[in-house]
Amino acid sequence: MRIVPRSVETLIEELSRLPGVGPRTAERLAFHILKSDAAKAAALGTAVSELHLSVRGCTQCHNFAEDELCAVCQSPEREQTVLAVVEEPFDVVAIEKTGQYHGLYHVLGGVISPIDGYGPAQLEIASLIQRVTNGTITEVILATNPSLEGESTAMYIRQQLEASGVKLTRLARGLPVGGDLEYADQVTLGRALQGRQSF
Amino acid sequence: MRIVPRSVETLIEELSRLPGVGPRTAERLAFHILKSDAAKAAALGTAVSELHLSVRGCTQCHNFAEDELCAVCQSPEREQTVLAVVEEPFDVVAIEKTGQYHGLYHVLGGVISPIDGYGPAQLEIASLIQRVTNGTITEVILATNPSLEGESTAMYIRQQLEASGVKLTRLARGLPVGGDLEYADQVTLGRALQGRQSF
Repeated sequence: MRIVPRSVETLIEELSRLPGVGPRTAERLAFHILKSDAAKAAALGTAVSELHLSVRGCTQCHNFAEDELCAVCQSPEREQTVLAVVEEPFDVVAIEKTGQYHGLYHVLGGVISPIDGYGPAQLEIASLIQRVTNGTITEVILATNPSLEGESTAMYIRQQLEASGVKLTRLARGLPVGGDLEYADQVTLGRALQGRQSF
Repeated sequence: MRIVPRSVETLIEELSRLPGVGPRTAERLAFHILKSDAAKAAALGTAVSELHLSVRGCTQCHNFAEDELCAVCQSPEREQTVLAVVEEPFDVVAIEKTGQYHGLYHVLGGVISPIDGYGPAQLEIASLIQRVTNGTITEVILATNPSLEGESTAMYIRQQLEASGVKLTRLARGLPVGGDLEYADQVTLGRALQGRQSF
């Protein structure tokens, strides 16, 4: 006997494919959607279905875009000489939220990770090198994640760009603001010591 | 400047209305859906949009149903004399999962909660009383949640059904299986003592 209607079962299955959503959470979400009115469910459904229709990759920096170029690349107000290299489009969102960066971006679309079959060819590294050598860029900020893969990807890009003569920088490592020295891991604390600044 | 495309923003807004999904989780889910291919997103979107189209309330027990009667009410194999009164359709799912109940259900659609504007009139209590007095029911299991509202709803229904002469029972209270006596709350441990069974 099928206790849960087939359409609810389908939704639970689809929801449990999302990251961090297990079968129990999926069930809870599905029942919530079912209890809320049909118009609200339809709004959510449409938002999901139509997502891919209006979003594409910026042809210049590979960030999310609604047109051929993303909002950053289109803007005449951005500094055309500084380029931040990030892994994913949401890293752009994170940096934009700081309000402290006014340059351009280049989204790699991932990191070098041989175990997942991601080499330099799968990433937007060739287009980055072309952009840097052809363009007006004077500084490239390697803003990949401070993880093993992020670091090695940054290292690889540094090797590729060293000959171009542009200034290569990366984000400072140190204690997170509001963090607790006692609970900082050794590596972070070590980097914070190495990078200590005059006060 | 709009960094996140409008359709992504819309989805984040819609997702953050779900229970237990804050703005950060909504962002993460939206980006995940965006990164997965369009066909998968469409499948999820359709599952959400079409949910309400094929699910309705069973006219007899108010459980989820695909036809006029739900799967339980339709089944000739269920005991027609025992009725479990539950708050929500997912309580039916939980009880069915035990595989130990073979009777019928009655879904109240909530609990008596004056603070939320839920009185007996908003719940399927009148239909329950009619069902019990008109029918073949000999036992009613009050399987509302062991919460304050659940208990008072069960109490109210007991008062309403006392005159009918059917046997009224409720689920046993006690230590959860696999739980730890040391960590059980006082009330639960007290109930477990009161309800102790010969060994």
